[in-house]
This record gives sequence, structure tokens and C-alpha cells, in this order.
Amino acid sequence: MRPQIFLKKLIKPIFNTGRTREIFHVNPTIAPVRQEPDDIKICIYDYNVKDLNDEELFSIDELLKYKDNGNVTWINIDGLKKSAVDEVCLKFGIHPLIVEDILSIGQRPKMDEINEILFCLLNMLYFNDQDNCVEVEQISIVLGKSFVITFQEDPERDVFNTLRERLKLNQSRLRIKGSDYLCYNLLDTIVDHYFVVMEKLGDKIELLEEEIIRTSTVRSLAKINNFRKEVIVLRRNVAPVRDIIYGFIKSESELLDDANTKYYKDVLDHINQANEFADNYRDMLNNLQELYISKVNLKMNEVMKVMAVVTCLLAPATVIGGIFGMNFEVIPFSASHWAFYITVIVMLLIIPGLMLVIFKRRGWY
Amino acid sequence: MRPQIFLKKLIKPIFNTGRTREIFHVNPTIAPVRQEPDDIKICIYDYNVKDLNDEELFSIDELLKYKDNGNVTWINIDGLKKSAVDEVCLKFGIHPLIVEDILSIGQRPKMDEINEILFCLLNMLYFNDQDNCVEVEQISIVLGKSFVITFQEDPERDVFNTLRERLKLNQSRLRIKGSDYLCYNLLDTIVDHYFVVMEKLGDKIELLEEEIIRTSTVRSLAKINNFRKEVIVLRRNVAPVRDIIYGFIKSESELLDDANTKYYKDVLDHINQANEFADNYRDMLNNLQELYISKVNLKMNEVMKVMAVVTCLLAPATVIGGIFGMNFEVIPFSASHWAFYITVIVMLLIIPGLMLVIFKRRGWY
Amino acid sequence: MRPQIFLKKLIKPIFNTGRTREIFHVNPTIAPVRQEPDDIKICIYDYNVKDLNDEELFSIDELLKYKDNGNVTWINIDGLKKSAVDEVCLKFGIHPLIVEDILSIGQRPKMDEINEILFCLLNMLYFNDQDNCVEVEQISIVLGKSFVITFQEDPERDVFNTLRERLKLNQSRLRIKGSDYLCYNLLDTIVDHYFVVMEKLGDKIELLEEEIIRTSTVRSLAKINNFRKEVIVLRRNVAPVRDIIYGFIKSESELLDDANTKYYKDVLDHINQANEFADNYRDMLNNLQELYISKVNLKMNEVMKVMAVVTCLLAPATVIGGIFGMNFEVIPFSASHWAFYITVIVMLLIIPGLMLVIFKRRGWY
Amino acid sequence: MRPQIFLKKLIKPIFNTGRTREIFHVNPTIAPVRQEPDDIKICIYDYNVKDLNDEELFSIDELLKYKDNGNVTWINIDGLKKSAVDEVCLKFGIHPLIVEDILSIGQRPKMDEINEILFCLLNMLYFNDQDNCVEVEQISIVLGKSFVITFQEDPERDVFNTLRERLKLNQSRLRIKGSDYLCYNLLDTIVDHYFVVMEKLGDKIELLEEEIIRTSTVRSLAKINNFRKEVIVLRRNVAPVRDIIYGFIKSESELLDDANTKYYKDVLDHINQANEFADNYRDMLNNLQELYISKVNLKMNEVMKVMAVVTCLLAPATVIGGIFGMNFEVIPFSASHWAFYITVIVMLLIIPGLMLVIFKRRGWY
Amino acid sequence: MRPQIFLKKLIKPIFNTGRTREIFHVNPTIAPVRQEPDDIKICIYDYNVKDLNDEELFSIDELLKYKDNGNVTWINIDGLKKSAVDEVCLKFGIHPLIVEDILSIGQRPKMDEINEILFCLLNMLYFNDQDNCVEVEQISIVLGKSFVITFQEDPERDVFNTLRERLKLNQSRLRIKGSDYLCYNLLDTIVDHYFVVMEKLGDKIELLEEEIIRTSTVRSLAKINNFRKEVIVLRRNVAPVRDIIYGFIKSESELLDDANTKYYKDVLDHINQANEFADNYRDMLNNLQELYISKVNLKMNEVMKVMAVVTCLLAPATVIGGIFGMNFEVIPFSASHWAFYITVIVMLLIIPGLMLVIFKRRGWY
Repeated sequence: MRPQIFLKKLIKPIFNTGRTREIFHVNPTIAPVRQEPDDIKICIYDYNVKDLNDEELFSIDELLKYKDNGNVTWINIDGLKKSAVDEVCLKFGIHPLIVEDILSIGQRPKMDEINEILFCLLNMLYFNDQDNCVEVEQISIVLGKSFVITFQEDPERDVFNTLRERLKLNQSRLRIKGSDYLCYNLLDTIVDHYFVVMEKLGDKIELLEEEIIRTSTVRSLAKINNFRKEVIVLRRNVAPVRDIIYGFIKSESELLDDANTKYYKDVLDHINQANEFADNYRDMLNNLQELYISKVNLKMNEVMKVMAVVTCLLAPATVIGGIFGMNFEVIPFSASHWAFYITVIVMLLIIPGLMLVIFKRRGWY
Repeated sequence: MRPQIFLKKLIKPIFNTGRTREIFHVNPTIAPVRQEPDDIKICIYDYNVKDLNDEELFSIDELLKYKDNGNVTWINIDGLKKSAVDEVCLKFGIHPLIVEDILSIGQRPKMDEINEILFCLLNMLYFNDQDNCVEVEQISIVLGKSFVITFQEDPERDVFNTLRERLKLNQSRLRIKGSDYLCYNLLDTIVDHYFVVMEKLGDKIELLEEEIIRTSTVRSLAKINNFRKEVIVLRRNVAPVRDIIYGFIKSESELLDDANTKYYKDVLDHINQANEFADNYRDMLNNLQELYISKVNLKMNEVMKVMAVVTCLLAPATVIGGIFGMNFEVIPFSASHWAFYITVIVMLLIIPGLMLVIFKRRGWY
Repeated sequence: MRPQIFLKKLIKPIFNTGRTREIFHVNPTIAPVRQEPDDIKICIYDYNVKDLNDEELFSIDELLKYKDNGNVTWINIDGLKKSAVDEVCLKFGIHPLIVEDILSIGQRPKMDEINEILFCLLNMLYFNDQDNCVEVEQISIVLGKSFVITFQEDPERDVFNTLRERLKLNQSRLRIKGSDYLCYNLLDTIVDHYFVVMEKLGDKIELLEEEIIRTSTVRSLAKINNFRKEVIVLRRNVAPVRDIIYGFIKSESELLDDANTKYYKDVLDHINQANEFADNYRDMLNNLQELYISKVNLKMNEVMKVMAVVTCLLAPATVIGGIFGMNFEVIPFSASHWAFYITVIVMLLIIPGLMLVIFKRRGWY
Repeated sequence: MRPQIFLKKLIKPIFNTGRTREIFHVNPTIAPVRQEPDDIKICIYDYNVKDLNDEELFSIDELLKYKDNGNVTWINIDGLKKSAVDEVCLKFGIHPLIVEDILSIGQRPKMDEINEILFCLLNMLYFNDQDNCVEVEQISIVLGKSFVITFQEDPERDVFNTLRERLKLNQSRLRIKGSDYLCYNLLDTIVDHYFVVMEKLGDKIELLEEEIIRTSTVRSLAKINNFRKEVIVLRRNVAPVRDIIYGFIKSESELLDDANTKYYKDVLDHINQANEFADNYRDMLNNLQELYISKVNLKMNEVMKVMAVVTCLLAPATVIGGIFGMNFEVIPFSASHWAFYITVIVMLLIIPGLMLVIFKRRGWY
Repeated sequence: MRPQIFLKKLIKPIFNTGRTREIFHVNPTIAPVRQEPDDIKICIYDYNVKDLNDEELFSIDELLKYKDNGNVTWINIDGLKKSAVDEVCLKFGIHPLIVEDILSIGQRPKMDEINEILFCLLNMLYFNDQDNCVEVEQISIVLGKSFVITFQEDPERDVFNTLRERLKLNQSRLRIKGSDYLCYNLLDTIVDHYFVVMEKLGDKIELLEEEIIRTSTVRSLAKINNFRKEVIVLRRNVAPVRDIIYGFIKSESELLDDANTKYYKDVLDHINQANEFADNYRDMLNNLQELYISKVNLKMNEVMKVMAVVTCLLAPATVIGGIFGMNFEVIPFSASHWAFYITVIVMLLIIPGLMLVIFKRRGWY
């Protein structure tokens, strides 16, 4: 009954304006609306070439026994509870400025080097297939003499499962090398996951391209608009990671074994490629926007042509009908038996036929 | 009665051309149209670790007792009265070129280092919710051995209230550290407020996006145009601050404690992020402009389609009506009882029905 | 009678194509079409802290007495007469390559340092209110040990009047400091005048914006096109001056007192700001172009809507009229007294009324 | 019968969306979907100034006899079989990280220097005339003391045939110089083939331009869209090669004879030119897109004009026909013998004639 | 009879697609399609301060007497005959890599320094007034101890005639200075001629602008498209010359007298300006493209308005005619004497008159 109202309900959700709010509301300074979690989850991977101790701790105090025990220790903490983060950082001598960074979410990826500690903060990206959006989870990586501490917000997910598997392999390179090699592996795994996200986004863009070619509705326009926002998110998170990796490469910290620089260079290659890809995605979406506009124009063109053809074809008939409909007393041929038929044939077949020939020559089909 | 005139009155104010004049009339050199204030307001925060003396002075001469008293002194002067600024600067040995800069408003943010004084000049930004515009207030910060002097134009407002609260906390880091740390806090507070302004602007842009998706009137066009000007203002004020902060970081002045460099680096991170955000806003507005045009085109398309359909549907009826309206003496079927009804059914139901089928196949709905 | 011809006459002058020729014909190498002036005008400002000798000379030979007299001498020469310029330059030991530069107009602003002489060449800009265009006058500044020589083309105007006033003040900083400070003042005055020109251009652009919002005629299009050319002129003249000022700052010439570097840095700030402004102007004109196109599209949209509405409203009436105009012998209701009135009411009120309701729901108003 | 369905079948394949998937699915990290080949093919070119030994090996062990035999050896291995690559690299002391790079396809071109080995990885490009697309084949080049090993995926094709011919010429420069000169020749041949690919692409673009000028169908739009993707592929592969060549030039490895730097500089010139060309192609395609839109608009314009002219020409006839068709009892002239003829002449000749004159003056033809 | 076919013939040549082929077919590597000339032409200018020997040689062997004769010798060779170039280069000790460069046409401008020889290769540009295109002729300049050899392809033309005149003046600076000054003059003359070409191109662009303003036909579109290609040619040839000149300035070759650096700097200024101009031309053409589109849209707008007005004005007449043409037995007023006249007046004057008033208020004129 009221198709317009129905239509409006349909159209509105396809434009994701709430997403605009999310993207532009990332504020690194004023009170983060981070929800203080009730509890944290501490996972330990304490290893050397031969042994791997993989357990979940239930108290921060237990961490002490892993400090300076000669092994490399990866402490993964899920849940950014202020008191817990403070306590952990105090135990490991991490500067308060770093603690602040760890606790405030929505920051620009960055890297710092304070008091023999290398610190970096970046975002893991996930692709949400339902909402077609790129989700971020901030991760802080603290690299110390023989330990790596990672702080994540969401205990439900991260991108390190393949790394955990590889840690369990005795004599693997990961087990032989020190904490900086672990740190490299963490960064590498995060960066590699960017490509997974981009692949999924690429699939969606390709489907969108197909859709635009097929139908070009306002729905496609909405999707172009939405994907552009996702590419902004992508670029914002990927671009600064280059500086982080570069910071590790040119750092002269003793924490980093020079022999491992080549691994960091490898990550640099990947992140450079990721950056280029993100640029390509932006270009691709611009192309799609232009394609969309061209398609809409073409459709309009087609409609106009049909209308013009119909108008032209029928106009003579209308005129002739009008002429012989005039109430003059003397109308030529009006008494003829064949007048009606001849007139109809002329106005419906001969004149339109001539016109069609002309249109065809003009290339209107 | 005269809707056009009423409309014109309505349309004009939504395009804010006066704002164009304001933005392009900032002239740093020729006589600033700064209104000489009647009076100035001097606020003192004189503190060390234990004590804080927070008072308002009524004469410039009183300032002398705070000079070289061993404490850190923050002198905030509201109102750019030439005589007063001259006197204060003379007392604290500030170079005349700096005095000139302090007194002329509308300048590009800049930083300078003359005679053991570090000077910087930048703009505090506020977002005016009524007019949807970014307002600026110039602030000059002079950093000396144990004092910081800030000169503002508008006594009504600034962005330092949270800082004033923190100053009152005994033993806070702000109270322990020297004048350069106070200066860092001033800069940090100003830069952090940029994000507040951008957040508000982001909200407005999001509302605008929703509006464009819903209605796409000339009003939306005006708003895109207006917000673009605000983003110009934003970028013009935010971009050069990067050089200021960078100037502090690479400065070798003895006024700056090397241990505090990391704090300035933190501000640098924030200002970089602010710059990126400003760029994102510009991109977003470009996207909105394209979205707007696409929506207008789509609407036009829809109108054209309806018109084409109506034209096509009714044309045959017109022609048939014309044919049988001709005044020939011999008209076939004219004597038949059912002729009228058959003709009407053919011209109103059968032919249009056939056409609708064709249109549907062409994807015109 | 012939509105088209009248219109053509009207349209042509608003597009300023001759200006295109002027802008693209600046050729720095092949014979300058500089008109050799009949005469030159030499003005002398010879001063020290206490005395100022301000006179007009009538022979080049008189210049000699000002050379090496211990005072600072500003020699301003209006009129680029080859013989005179050659003679002056010979007297002051200026390299022939510089002489060539002085004599050829239309050059890119540049700075050079040959044989203890600092030379720079740039353009003074004026805004022509009648033609809405930016006019240039080339000025060459030669800085020597205790003299500054300026060569201008047009004796009628320059931008130095305020400077001349300040020279007359005894004990002013201008009178105390040396020739390099005078040179700084010349450059500063020229750069400051750029802002005056830009302000005027900004006013015109603002008026144009208002005009586009109000009417959007082809006239506005012409103006956008013309102003774009002026912004090209502006940018071409302002951008290279940055290199000149920077050249003075980093020059290690003994002619420049290090204590005056801060003044040149001040000019650098201004010229940087001028560059940014020029960029903003370009962006603004691009916005106006898009605004113009959007307005034209909107207007077309409105026209199309009106046409579609009229077509739709009247089509049924035409069809019904055609139906009852058919010359069948049996036409239902044709004998009824009320048939005519009912039909007219249906076709003129009821059907259009229904249509209007539908259009309103589609949001066509 | 169903032209639309037929049309859809026709249109879809001309937009190559599958290509989008290919371009955006290049993932350098996660398990390459490289098909492990059943077998590899090893070709040896072992030469010195006088002798050339050119044979195909059937076992990797045979390679040993060419190691350190005093000659320069080019080992070309077709087929990226993991076990074989591992074995070869072990024999020649190539670092495992390089092995990984060799085995994973779809990587960004890169260059590395590990343990006295120079390694680079780039793509050979081919132009597929059927699908109008740029095909890539990754090639890894390992330069050692007296050997060059190249790993390719596809045994069917590479770009080195001319090089093989030149190797067979005794006393040629290639035979006189060392392994680094061979490496230069490999790179040079690859880069030179980029121009062949670009030439073919250029031919296609030119044909497309002609097509757009002639017909401007949706087919042209599809082609622009497709070629843009190919230019993305081109730029992605060509741009990073610059860094590779530059890496060779600035490398201080002992493997590279300084006397050969000029050859690498020559390649650098070529790759720079290739980059510029790729940019030109992108610009050209943007121009074509604009040309296409302009052509579509022009066509629409023409259609609209015809429609407007027809509407205008016939409207008066319709009105006059309507007037004299009214059933009033007193219709002027209705009894006149000439009324019909005069009316028809007026409505079909005189009024349209007048209108045509007006249209002509308005410049509508 | 067949205007379309006639039109197609007319349109095709105005789009210069063959030019696209030429521009994109420049291939620096694979066998140059350079036509081996039958003969070469050798011109000698052997001079010192006092004497000038200006003759045409007919055998390459004669060159030997000019080698190391103490004079500066300019050897200009027209015609790139491989055997001749080889022989000349062998005689003057020019490296084979340079010989290769000289013989292959279509290369990117470059500069090289091998074995005490400075070599540069760039293009002379000519403007072809008939075809409105920029023509290139490659020139190679070899600067040795006391000689300059220039190789050109086309014996018919070059840009050095003014230079030849100046060489004939005894005691001119050209005759006093060495071979590097001659080389500077060659480069300067080439670069200066770029401005001549640009001037001519600028004239054409200005004419095009006028044409677009006047008529905006498809012809203008073709011209914009063509000129864009010429600007690509221009930029491609002008931009790299900057590196050549810069290479001369920073070269530490003993062939270049430091006292002449300032002359090269002068060329650098010119080439920088030429680059800026080329950018301006591109911007200008973009402006023209937008102007063209705006004009086409405006014209369409005008057509649509006329059509809408006509449709609106005549629709009521059609409806009223239809109403009173209905064959009802009872038609009000039908018996009245004045009915016809009143109806006609209402439908042709009063209703249209009212509509015109409404249209005028809407600003449709």
C-alpha cells in the first residue's frame, strides 16, 4: 500500500552511517571508553630449545618465577584491566608512559624504545563477514631481555594460533632463537593476517563489481560508500606499521640480534606490499564509482532514447489524426471508401517506417 | 503567494559565504584588526613540589616577585593589550620580534628560539555548535628558565581547565618537573582539544551523510560546501603544529630536559594522528559530494523513467483515439455496437499491458 | 529581433581568453617584447643613523658620489633602459649575467650570488579591480656592501611607499642597521603586498560564490575559469619566492649579518603562509566548480520534474478526450445530460488528484 | 524473442570481474596455491671466452661438477619443486630465507644480499592477446661468485631466447665478462620485455580509443575498466624493479665489478622510462574514461535535441487540430472550401518553418 | 542522402588516434625502426678567439686534422648511419655504450660520464602547425677535451642557426671560452626552443578555449584529447632534461670550468620554468575539459527548458481541444456564437500567459 515507506526502511540500513561515527570517533587522548574487564587471562609460553612450558596463570605473582629464569618467556595477557596491567609493568620495569599507551585504545600504531625495553603498539585486523567491515583489536608488544609481553583487549580471539602450534615443535628455529625472534614472529603473523583481511575485502569488492555491472541500484552506491570507509580503516592501520618495522630495523638496541635483521626486512617487504594493495583497493573503488555513474548514465540514455523514439514515431499519427478530425465541411477524400485505410496505413506504417530507417542510420540502436 | 521569494530567503543563509570571507581574510602582516582590549587579566600559578600559589594579579609590577624565586611560574595573560604585553616582555627579556608576533593575530603556527627563550604560537580550536564552524583563538607560549608565559586573546575561554585541576595536586608529576614539562602539558592539552573539535565535526558530517542519503536537497549541498571550508580551517591550523612539536624535539636548548623528550614525542604522535584524521575528513567530504551527485542523478533517472513509461503507455491510446476521431464518411466498425468497448479495451488494457511486459524485461523497475 | 547575436556579444567578453595568451606567453629567453623606455628615473635614499638624503638624480654619473661614502644607499631605478642599466651595473661592478637578467622581463623569480653581490629578481603583484586580474611588475634587487639597487619597469607604481615613510624616521631600526636590513625590508614589503592582492582576490571569489548560489549562469562559469587563471599567475609568482628567501637564510655571504637571519626567517614564515593560501584558493575554486555543476544539475532536475508532472497530469485527459471523440455510432452515455460534466470532472480533477497524491509520496516536491 | 536475456549473456563476459579476483588475491604469505610440479628441468650454460657447454641435466647431483670449475655457469631451473629447490640451494650455500622466497609465488619484486649471495626476485611479464591481460611469471635470480641460478615456474616460456643466442657467439662481451654481467643481461632482457608488453597494451588502448570515438557502447566502458586493472598489474610489477636495480648499483658486494655499474645504470634508465610509460598509460585511460563520458553525454544531447525539435514542431499542429475538432455549432471558416487546405498548410508548413528558423538561430544543429 | 556516413568521415580524422600509437610506441630497447640513412653530412666549426673555420667535410678521415689542433671544434653530424657513427666514435675514443645510445632513437633524455667524456642525449622539439603536434628529434651531444660532437637524425632542420650566427662574431664570449661553454650554448639553445614550442602550443590552446566558449562541438572534444597527448609528449621530453643539466652542474669532470657553472645554473632556471609551464598547460587542459562538459550540460539544460516550456504551454490547449471534441450530445455552450472564440482565447492566450508568469518567477529564463 505504501511502497515508499517500505522502500525507505529498506534503503536506510544499506548505508552504514553509524560506521562513519565509529571511524571518526577514535580519540586517542580523552578518557577511552574502554570497558574495564572483570578479569584478565594470563597465558605463559616459557621455552628453550628443549623444553616448552605452556600454562595459564591465575595470579600475577606467579609471573615472577619466569623472570630471568634463563628461558625465553612469552606472556600473553588478555583483558586490559588497569590494576593488572600496572602490576605486571611494575614487575617488569616498564615505564609508566608505556603503561598509559597500553591502556588507552584507539591509538595510532607506534613504536618506542625506553629504558632497554622495546615497545610497539598496533592493531590486529579481522574481517567481519556479516557487516562487511574491518574490525580492529589493539595489541601492545613489549620486548625485554628474555621475555615478550603482549597485551590484548579481547580474550576471544587473536591471530597467533599458527604461531602457538609452531612453538610446540622442539628444535624449531623459533625455539632456538631468542625473544627478538619471537617478537618478529608476532609482528609477522599480525602483518600476514592483514592480507587475509584484504583478501576477504577483495572478494567483496569483486562481488560488488559484478553487482554494479548487472544491476547498478542505489544498493551498489551504498556499498561503494561503505567499502570506501573500510579502506580508510585499512589504510589508517596498515600505513603506520611500516614505521614500526622500520624502527626495529634501524634500532641499535641490544635486544635485537643483528642476525635477525633480515627477518624484519622480510616483514618490511610484506607491509610495503600491504600498503600498495590498500592503495590499489582505493583506486579500484574509485573505478567502481565511475563505473557506477557511467552505468546509470547509460541507463538514462537508453530510457531517453526509447522515449524519443516513441515520441517521434507517434507524433505524425497524432497530427494526421488531428487534421482529419477537424470539423470542416469540406474535407478532401472524406467520402472515399479507402480514405480511412490509406490514412491509417500512412500514419502507422509508412511514416514510422521511414523514421526507423533514419534512426537506424543515426546509430540509435 | 510568492513561494520563490520565500525560497530565496530560505536558501541564502544555508550557504555561508561570509565564512569564505573570514577564511581568506587572515592577513598576517598588515595592521591586525585586533581590538585593543580595555584591560588584561593576569593569572599566576607559582609552584614547586610542595606549594602552589594560585592568584590573580592586578598590576604587572607584581610579576617581578615571581621572577627567579626558585619556583616554576605559569603566567597566563588574557587580553592582548599592546602596552601590557610590551611591559611584560621587557621585564622577562623577550625579544621585540616575539612581541610583534604575540600582538599580531591570524598568523601561521610557528616556533622560534631567540636569546635563551623558546617561543611558539599556535591556535586553540573550538567547535561552534550553532554555526557549525571551527573557531580559533591564538595562543602564544613563551618558555623561559623557570617560567612559562601564555598570551591569549579571549579571557572568556581556553582549554586549560583540566590542567589547572592537575596543578593543584601535590606531588603530581606536573609539580615535580620543571617549566618545560609545564610547556609540554600546555601543548598536549591544546592538541588533545583538536580531537574534541574533530569529534564534533565528525558527528556533524555523519548527520550530513544521513541527510544526503535520506533527502539530498540543496541544503545538503550547502552543508558539504560549508564543511569543506571548516576542514580547510582545521588543516591550516593542525598541519603546521607538527613542525612546532618537531622543533621542540630536535631543539638543543638547555631549557628542555632530555628526559622529557619522550613526552614531546607523544604529542608528535597525537598531532600526526590529528593530521591523518583531517585528511580523512577531506576524503569523506569528497565521498559525500560524489554521493550527493549520484543521488541527484538517480532521482533524475527515476523521474525520467516514470515520464518515459507514461509517455509510452498513453501514446497508443492517443493515436487510436485520433484514428477513430477522423471525420471520414466510411469508418470501419463504426456502426458496430461493441466497437467502442473493444477499442477502449485494446487501447487502455491490451497495448499498455504488452508494453509493461516489455518494460519489465528491460529492467526499468 | 536577433537575441542570439546580442547574446554572443555579451558572452564573449566574460570569458577572458586573451588572458590565456598573456599567461602562456611569458618567454624568458627569446627577445623580450619589453618596450625600451625613453627615460629612466633615479631616486636616491642615502642614509645613516642621523641623516637621510632623499633626492632624485638626473644623471647616472651623480651616482658615483654615493658609492663608498660610508652611508647606506638605496638606489631605485624606474625604467629598464638598456644603456642606463648597463652603465649603472658597470659602475657598481655587477656581473653581465645579472645585467641580462635585469633587462629581460617575464622571468621565474630567482636568486643568485656572484662576485660579492647578492642578486634577486621577483615580481611585485597588483590586483586590477577592473579586469579582476593579477598584474605583475618585475623587480630586481641588487645587494652590495653598502648599497641596494632596485630596478623596476613601471615608474608609476611600486609597493614601497610605507617603507619610504619609515626611512624618514630618525633612529628607526631601518636607519641603524645596514644594507642587508634594507634588503630584508624590501623583500618583506613585497611579500606582504602579496597578501593584499590575495585578500582582494578572496573578496572576488566570495562574491562569485554568492553569485553561483544565487543564479548559476554561464557568467559564473566564465568567472570560475578566469579566476583559475589568476590563481595560476599567483602560484607561479609566489611559490619560487620561497627559494629566494631560503637562499638568503642559508647564504654565507658576508653581506648578510647573522643577527638579521631571524628577520629573513620571518619573511619565510609569511611566504610559506602565502603559498598555503594560494593552494587554498585553488581548492576553493575547485569547490566552486563542483558547486556550479551541482546547481546546474539541480536546476535541470527541477525542470525535468515539472515537465514530468505536467506530462503525467495531462496525459489521462488527452486519452479520455480522444476516447469520447471517436466517431462511433454507439458511444455510451453520449445521450446523458451529465456525461460531459462527469467526464470533465474525472479527467481534470479526480485522476490528476490521485496522481498528485502518488507524486507526493514519491517525494517529488 | 528475448533480446534482454541474450544481451545479458553478451554483456557479462566483457566485464572481466574474475580478473579482479586474481589481481587482489595475490597473497605473499599464506600457503601459496602454487602447484607442486611433477618434475623440473635443469639447463646449463657453462662458458668461458672460448668454450660454451650447453646441456640439459637430468639429476641435481650433476650440478656439482659445474661448481667452482673456473667457468661462469648459468643454471636455469624450470619448475618450482620444493625438494629440488631445497637441494640445489643447499649445494650452493643459499640461505633458507631465500629458498622460502623462491618457493612462494606472488611476491613483491625484491632484492637481498645474504652471505655473499645476491638475490633478486621479480616478474617476467607477457601480454595475452586473447584475454587482453598481462600475465606474470615470477623469476628468482641468484648471483654467486661464478654462477647465476635462475628459478622459473613455467617451463614453457621465458624471455631469454635472444640472450641464449648471444651466449653462443664466441668472443662476445657476454662470454668475456663474469657472472655479474650475465646477471645484468638477464635483468636487462626482462626489463626490455616490459616494453614489448607495454607496446601491445598500447596498441589495444589505441584500438579502444578508436572504438570509443566511433561507437561508445557499454563494451568500451568494460574495456576501459579491464585495461585499468591491467595497468594496475603493470605498475605493481614495474615500479619495485627500480629498487632492485638501484640496489645492484649501490651494492658494495664483491660479486659486482665496478666497471659494470654503467650497464646497471643503463637498465635503471630503462626501468625509469618504463615507469613513466606506465604512468602515461594510466593518464591515457583516465582521458579515455572522460572521453567516453563526454561522448555519451553528447549522444544524449543529440537525442534530447531531436526530441525537443519534434515536440516543438508538432505541438502547434496538435493544438490547431484540436481547436477545429471541437464540436461547437459555430466554427469560423468551417464552411469555406479552402479552410481545410489553408489550415493544414499553416500547421504543417508555416509554423514549423518559423520554428526551424528560430532553432537554427539558437545553434541547435 | 547519407549524412551519417559523411559525418563519420568528418569526425574520424579530428580524433588523432594514430598519434596515440606513435606516443606509446617509443621503445628504447628492441631494434629501433630507425631508417639507416644513405649518407651523412658532417659540418665543422673549428675556432679560437681569432679564427673560425667553418666547412662541410665529405669524409670522416678529414676529421683527424681537427683533433687536438689546439682549437675548439664543433662537429655536427646529420644522419645516424651506423658505420659512420662507429667510425667517428672510434676516432674520438667514445665508449661503445655511448655509441649504442647515439644509434637508438626514442630514448629517455639522459646524461652520462664515461672515460673523460661527457655525454648527453635529449630531444629537440618542433611544433608542427599543420598537425598541431609536437615533433621530436633526438640529439646526442658528446663533450670532450677540446671538441663537441653532436649527432642528429634529420639533416633538414635543427635549432642551432642563431648559435651559428654568434659563432661567426670574432671576440664573442663564445669564441673566447672553451668547449664546455659551447656545450652550454647548445643545451641553452635547445631548452630555449622548448619555449617557442610551448608558445605555439599555448596559442593553439587559447584558440581552442575560444572555440569551446563559442561552439562546444565534438570537434573541441577531439582537440582537447589531442592536445593532452601533446602535453604528455612535452612533459616526457622536458622533465628529464632537468636531471641532465643538474648532472652537468654537480659533475666534477675536468672538462667543465667551474667559472661556467653559473651559465648551467641559468639553463637550470629555464628548464625549471619550462617544467612549470608544462604543468600549467596540463592544468589548463583539465580546466578546458571541465569547461567543455559544463557548456554541454548548459546547452542540454537550455534545450530541456525550451522543451518543458513548450510542453507545458501547449498541454492545456490539447486538453481543452479534446474536451470539446467529445461526441456527447449535450455539450455546454456549444450552441453559443462566441463559444469557439472564447475557448480559443482561453486556451491559447490566458492559460499560457499565466504559465509564463509562473515560469518567469521560477527563473527559467
